[in-house]
Amino acid sequence: MSATALESLAQQACVRDAARLPAGEVDTLLAVLPGWQHVADRVAKTYRFAGWHETMAFVNAVAWIAERAGHHPDLSVHFNRCVVSYSTHDAGGITRNDLVCAARVERLFA
Amino acid sequence: MSATALESLAQQACVRDAARLPAGEVDTLLAVLPGWQHVADRVAKTYRFAGWHETMAFVNAVAWIAERAGHHPDLSVHFNRCVVSYSTHDAGGITRNDLVCAARVERLFA
Repeated sequence: MSATALESLAQQACVRDAARLPAGEVDTLLAVLPGWQHVADRVAKTYRFAGWHETMAFVNAVAWIAERAGHHPDLSVHFNRCVVSYSTHDAGGITRNDLVCAARVERLFA
Repeated sequence: MSATALESLAQQACVRDAARLPAGEVDTLLAVLPGWQHVADRVAKTYRFAGWHETMAFVNAVAWIAERAGHHPDLSVHFNRCVVSYSTHDAGGITRNDLVCAARVERLFA
């Protein structure tokens, strides 16, 4: 992966009424997001942590990113891991907004 | 349900090496926890909120309760709802600790 490509994706704006992306385009964009996977109509990654405090600190960082973007993930929160999953309900699948937000979450570790 | 019974359950201590409860006892204790359900080897409830801010405030209150109890739920976090689910891995099912923690979460709304 290229840190520059990740940064470039993360810096894009989330837009209203984003269109559903073709699967091939999703997979091309996912190439710059290490560990993110295309599962059904979602993109998702499992992040692992030392324990509850670290997990919750991450959850709150993601919550802030979501609020700033106006685009919200689903989170599956456990003691030492969190699955972050993005999809765009209105588009019925994955839009560029989902990949942009995934890049912003991934950038927390860059 | 009885507010007193809920309070009584919430005030119990979580203990180490808690034993798995018989299903009948789980259901008796669940009677004081409105909306909580016994699903497979877990007890769970879906809480609904006005939006992301309120959902995240709730998530953080639950995180604090979990840390104080030394017993941690699984959380499924969405834009305007959160599913809280308790189970005790070491016991292979539901223990009194799970019901005590569920009562503490439920008490947030009492």
